[in-house]
Amino acid sequence: MRIDLMSWPEVDHYLEDRSDIIVPIGSTEQHGPNGLIGTDALCAEVIGRAVGEKSGALVAPTIAIGMAQHHLGFPGSMSLRPSTLMAVVRDVIASLAGHGFTRICFVNGHGGNIATVTAAFSEYYAESSFAAHGNSTPVECRLRNWWEAPSVGPISKELYGDAEGSHATPSEVSVTQFAFPDHIKSAAMRPDVAPTASFTDAADYRRNFPDGRIGSNPALASPEAGARLVEAAAGDLAAEHLSWIGR
Amino acid sequence: MRIDLMSWPEVDHYLEDRSDIIVPIGSTEQHGPNGLIGTDALCAEVIGRAVGEKSGALVAPTIAIGMAQHHLGFPGSMSLRPSTLMAVVRDVIASLAGHGFTRICFVNGHGGNIATVTAAFSEYYAESSFAAHGNSTPVECRLRNWWEAPSVGPISKELYGDAEGSHATPSEVSVTQFAFPDHIKSAAMRPDVAPTASFTDAADYRRNFPDGRIGSNPALASPEAGARLVEAAAGDLAAEHLSWIGR
Amino acid sequence: MRIDLMSWPEVDHYLEDRSDIIVPIGSTEQHGPNGLIGTDALCAEVIGRAVGEKSGALVAPTIAIGMAQHHLGFPGSMSLRPSTLMAVVRDVIASLAGHGFTRICFVNGHGGNIATVTAAFSEYYAESSFAAHGNSTPVECRLRNWWEAPSVGPISKELYGDAEGSHATPSEVSVTQFAFPDHIKSAAMRPDVAPTASFTDAADYRRNFPDGRIGSNPALASPEAGARLVEAAAGDLAAEHLSWIGR
Amino acid sequence: MRIDLMSWPEVDHYLEDRSDIIVPIGSTEQHGPNGLIGTDALCAEVIGRAVGEKSGALVAPTIAIGMAQHHLGFPGSMSLRPSTLMAVVRDVIASLAGHGFTRICFVNGHGGNIATVTAAFSEYYAESSFAAHGNSTPVECRLRNWWEAPSVGPISKELYGDAEGSHATPSEVSVTQFAFPDHIKSAAMRPDVAPTASFTDAADYRRNFPDGRIGSNPALASPEAGARLVEAAAGDLAAEHLSWIGR
Amino acid sequence: MRIDLMSWPEVDHYLEDRSDIIVPIGSTEQHGPNGLIGTDALCAEVIGRAVGEKSGALVAPTIAIGMAQHHLGFPGSMSLRPSTLMAVVRDVIASLAGHGFTRICFVNGHGGNIATVTAAFSEYYAESSFAAHGNSTPVECRLRNWWEAPSVGPISKELYGDAEGSHATPSEVSVTQFAFPDHIKSAAMRPDVAPTASFTDAADYRRNFPDGRIGSNPALASPEAGARLVEAAAGDLAAEHLSWIGR
Amino acid sequence: MRIDLMSWPEVDHYLEDRSDIIVPIGSTEQHGPNGLIGTDALCAEVIGRAVGEKSGALVAPTIAIGMAQHHLGFPGSMSLRPSTLMAVVRDVIASLAGHGFTRICFVNGHGGNIATVTAAFSEYYAESSFAAHGNSTPVECRLRNWWEAPSVGPISKELYGDAEGSHATPSEVSVTQFAFPDHIKSAAMRPDVAPTASFTDAADYRRNFPDGRIGSNPALASPEAGARLVEAAAGDLAAEHLSWIGR
Repeated sequence: MRIDLMSWPEVDHYLEDRSDIIVPIGSTEQHGPNGLIGTDALCAEVIGRAVGEKSGALVAPTIAIGMAQHHLGFPGSMSLRPSTLMAVVRDVIASLAGHGFTRICFVNGHGGNIATVTAAFSEYYAESSFAAHGNSTPVECRLRNWWEAPSVGPISKELYGDAEGSHATPSEVSVTQFAFPDHIKSAAMRPDVAPTASFTDAADYRRNFPDGRIGSNPALASPEAGARLVEAAAGDLAAEHLSWIGR
Repeated sequence: MRIDLMSWPEVDHYLEDRSDIIVPIGSTEQHGPNGLIGTDALCAEVIGRAVGEKSGALVAPTIAIGMAQHHLGFPGSMSLRPSTLMAVVRDVIASLAGHGFTRICFVNGHGGNIATVTAAFSEYYAESSFAAHGNSTPVECRLRNWWEAPSVGPISKELYGDAEGSHATPSEVSVTQFAFPDHIKSAAMRPDVAPTASFTDAADYRRNFPDGRIGSNPALASPEAGARLVEAAAGDLAAEHLSWIGR
Repeated sequence: MRIDLMSWPEVDHYLEDRSDIIVPIGSTEQHGPNGLIGTDALCAEVIGRAVGEKSGALVAPTIAIGMAQHHLGFPGSMSLRPSTLMAVVRDVIASLAGHGFTRICFVNGHGGNIATVTAAFSEYYAESSFAAHGNSTPVECRLRNWWEAPSVGPISKELYGDAEGSHATPSEVSVTQFAFPDHIKSAAMRPDVAPTASFTDAADYRRNFPDGRIGSNPALASPEAGARLVEAAAGDLAAEHLSWIGR
Repeated sequence: MRIDLMSWPEVDHYLEDRSDIIVPIGSTEQHGPNGLIGTDALCAEVIGRAVGEKSGALVAPTIAIGMAQHHLGFPGSMSLRPSTLMAVVRDVIASLAGHGFTRICFVNGHGGNIATVTAAFSEYYAESSFAAHGNSTPVECRLRNWWEAPSVGPISKELYGDAEGSHATPSEVSVTQFAFPDHIKSAAMRPDVAPTASFTDAADYRRNFPDGRIGSNPALASPEAGARLVEAAAGDLAAEHLSWIGR
Repeated sequence: MRIDLMSWPEVDHYLEDRSDIIVPIGSTEQHGPNGLIGTDALCAEVIGRAVGEKSGALVAPTIAIGMAQHHLGFPGSMSLRPSTLMAVVRDVIASLAGHGFTRICFVNGHGGNIATVTAAFSEYYAESSFAAHGNSTPVECRLRNWWEAPSVGPISKELYGDAEGSHATPSEVSVTQFAFPDHIKSAAMRPDVAPTASFTDAADYRRNFPDGRIGSNPALASPEAGARLVEAAAGDLAAEHLSWIGR
Repeated sequence: MRIDLMSWPEVDHYLEDRSDIIVPIGSTEQHGPNGLIGTDALCAEVIGRAVGEKSGALVAPTIAIGMAQHHLGFPGSMSLRPSTLMAVVRDVIASLAGHGFTRICFVNGHGGNIATVTAAFSEYYAESSFAAHGNSTPVECRLRNWWEAPSVGPISKELYGDAEGSHATPSEVSVTQFAFPDHIKSAAMRPDVAPTASFTDAADYRRNFPDGRIGSNPALASPEAGARLVEAAAGDLAAEHLSWIGR
């Protein structure tokens, strides 16, 4: 259930019975020669909404722009600074907490968000930790990367082996091909499998990874694989979510 | 053209020829008994993308959570503080400016965003104003409220007259009914037309407007009206946009 | 009554009976060839104090430096960043709220302040909106631009017609000539009426408006006009203020 | 010369010859039973402008609201947080630096501002210190407390001895009585000389100093003493200023 | 080599030859009934300095207070908010970068620091990523948790098995017993091995873990184990460091 | 008693009886040709811990990196911006206040910290001053510069006279020679006594003071003098501390 497609009395009704919500969070950044710039936001949105369907949880609007400073060397990439994203996540949690939501699960599509979102949870908790040692916020926040759902790794490995890589992976490109079949792109990959390395800022990243990929061959992506991956990720995360909220 | 459905080489190609972009910005907040919580984000997204279609401009992902502190008294409303939203808009502009975008038009769906987004533009411009009086940023930012497109007011007046009101209006509810016909809701309105008043914070707002509406009767909304309004708004804004970028 | 010329027991006494205050806010920035750099702050101060005289309201010290990043290309202009001015306004409101002031009217002399001050009100209100949906701050803030007082427009139009323009207007220069008759300056205007255009940062502004004016001919200013304008603006704003506070 | 009473071409002309400016900075806070709430801002303004007259230096608008958190327990007191005032001072310096001002002297009327303004200077300098070790800003900032001008202490001691105290002093009240003879107030002082103590926040301050004074008997103030003190302080500070700028 | 025990000409000399530095970062927080409050800072310092000895690298002063909001429910715990620690790390990197340090390795003693420090690296890199896509900072930052050095896990497992746990572990307590043999404490552990669970803020943490431990039995700690662990961790990290800097 | 060498139950026990703590705060910055980069942090730590020994007070970990933007022109210097250090000090106070500490004495080793730390105290107090005029924080903070302890000045004057200077003084170098006898350095001083001047940012500082000293001849330092100075400073500060806490 998308919260943005509900009326406030419907949300009110939902809160009489349960207090959990899914918040998809992604990024808008280059994903190599054939990957969509919205890959990370779209994966989080598609899978986050599927988790909502399977678990009956409300789903918030997707936070589509994440922390992607290292991708700014490629046209179309957008980023928030970590300090900005931290404020966004804090305000989102505080908004939801005010209505009585107490289990907030961020379904994440972008590795670059992990540190900042985790720090943002602590920034939110710090309010009560500094203010009153006896009183505690009832809110629990959780970050789940869809690609770390238990069933996902084996599928990626089966399908792509070492060509999965870590950025612009065939798995994430597959998910977007499944979700947006009219926007599948083909592009030559040279070399087939991109190099791997560490990186620092945007210029360093582009120097190391001239076409944007890290260690991957997204030419192997397919909508069929995407369908499998969405089903696997959403199934795992929904089950875990229901367990978390005690249902 | 949605930028999130393009690859970076496609954006690169676009930038060889033009440097404008549309950024839909809305809000996720209560919209009365039958209005969707996502009304402002959805209107901005639907109309912003239509402007992109008509003008050939790229369209960025929608900034779906805006400045809606006064709506936090109703379940489901989400808000960024003004200082947070200012940082978001600044980072979005800076991201795009780095790629060579020089005409950035924010298509806005929420009155509560106007002050903060306008201030954010100045926060961005202040960087070059304080730094170097001789050097100027080539970036121009613009905020356009879809309901102020010239053709929109007459339609709203014709259809709804004084029942248009200023929050949870039949016009904006119509736009979402057009865009999401499966999510049309019906709800009793008591009184038919909601009261009007000023307000301060969330508790004050809820006290003044118990069902969330201000001065409106959104029971009058219809998908047909929505279709007319989207066409009118997008047509006006696209024409204005093309004039702005000199095409 | 200027609060800065009172003792604290006198303010204490005032607060037994009423809880309203006027806060003049302006800017310190170029106002064309013959306008004073302090025009916006001086107009706000002169008119704000006159409102205080007519309404019996206390008047706070003038916030003389506003948001004027676009004027920094001209010697003598001073500006706060929007984020800084937002913090100033928030602290001013919080200071006054702590004493029991509940109706705070900012009498504004500078168009560039509007967005930031409006956002600052929301930043202040957000404190209670995020913190406790049941509790509300009793404080109401209001921003009033003196040039939008109902009686002012007709006078400006009668006296200056299209030569009023929008920056370094003959009306605002007249107000300062009335208030500071020893500091009336004469300067050639070329052309008589300045051009109009949009602008972004300071260098862009100076390029578009070489002598600082926008659309105006301030050579038409006179102290007599200033006297009329002050009387008109202060009369309107005082009446509106008394109505607001229920007197 | 008040910069707010000049036009920008006049400031431009001034900058051809010299690059110094005086910035009065004070506070708006309780000053005991007979002291004006604006005492610190008014003293800084009166003396700062007199320094300008004697030295030929431009004088900026007065920063009238300072760091006075400890006075917020008394009606009428206004304060910026240290972090806010730091941002204000940084933006003021940056504004002036952009025009070529290189000697900026803050004439201060409030002890509570000293730490924050001094820290703000370092915050400004840190920009170039962190950015480029080879390049230096040409700007020098200075804070001068009028009551520490060499000739002032002996006069205060001669006139008031131990009754001078450290807040709501007869010396500062005298300066305002000289400047605003129509606003001299009389009030009983019990005891004649107020107690002294340390303090932390506003409630602690009010508990320790029930009528707002620290160690002073401002009933001894007189306009004649104020005239002497202004002359002494302005003379000293002007001489020092001229020496600083090499004139 | 501790940089704080060198003179600046000695650092200058070092920088002629190499540009790497170790920055120990820890935390000051409860570590169960017998663990030192400084455990995480002391471990980082002892091991970080040993890495410096083995690799010839300079070692900066220890950042002793980290992000430990969840421990604030126990007396003696100190914490920075994530936003504060992010600013600290950014300023530390910027200070070192200004001198020409280009390989900065933070040797970390506290799991709670990981997200924030990682986000801080991105905040630093974002400066150049947003500013200039062609220019890159030459600085590379790295965070290394001493307990994840390859040789450490096997020792902990051999010595403590499942009683290692994740907070107030016998391994980290052993390191401090080795380093501070005069401050070894004994305390009853009930139960022997502490429970495990997730946690949010300080009150929630204390409710879940009444004596502060998570899953551990630090009564098993010994100085001898500490010696082994320091040697293992420092050896691994020094080797990795030398490889990183190409020596 | 170093708090970092205690367990939390030991701190709990301490707090049953008293509520005071010493926080050493210094800086990591160049100290001339023979001074240690850690001089200010080491002096604060050595003397702060000695104060703790003499007074029975707990001693927190040393804040080793302070506000030293003006020293960044010399290799090895590290600095926090004033705004960063202000946040650090605020969080440290808030952490301690949460446990019931009410007398927090910062023993300071660096003149450059004074303004920022003092402002930080006000930032902390401002929380309660703005929030609730009736409620007061019970926390009192104090900053004590070891070199201003009454007995210290006479010793410095006796030993060094005018060669004491104000940065890289023989007194502070002596303290570190006493504390770290294995790290005594010798270096030629040209001239014997360094010049004095004012300064702004790092480049300006280095231009004015090519070897880092201000007005001093630290070649005169000796470990014996250091021993005397530590004893004198710690004795004074401990006596003052005990008086402050009423013991």
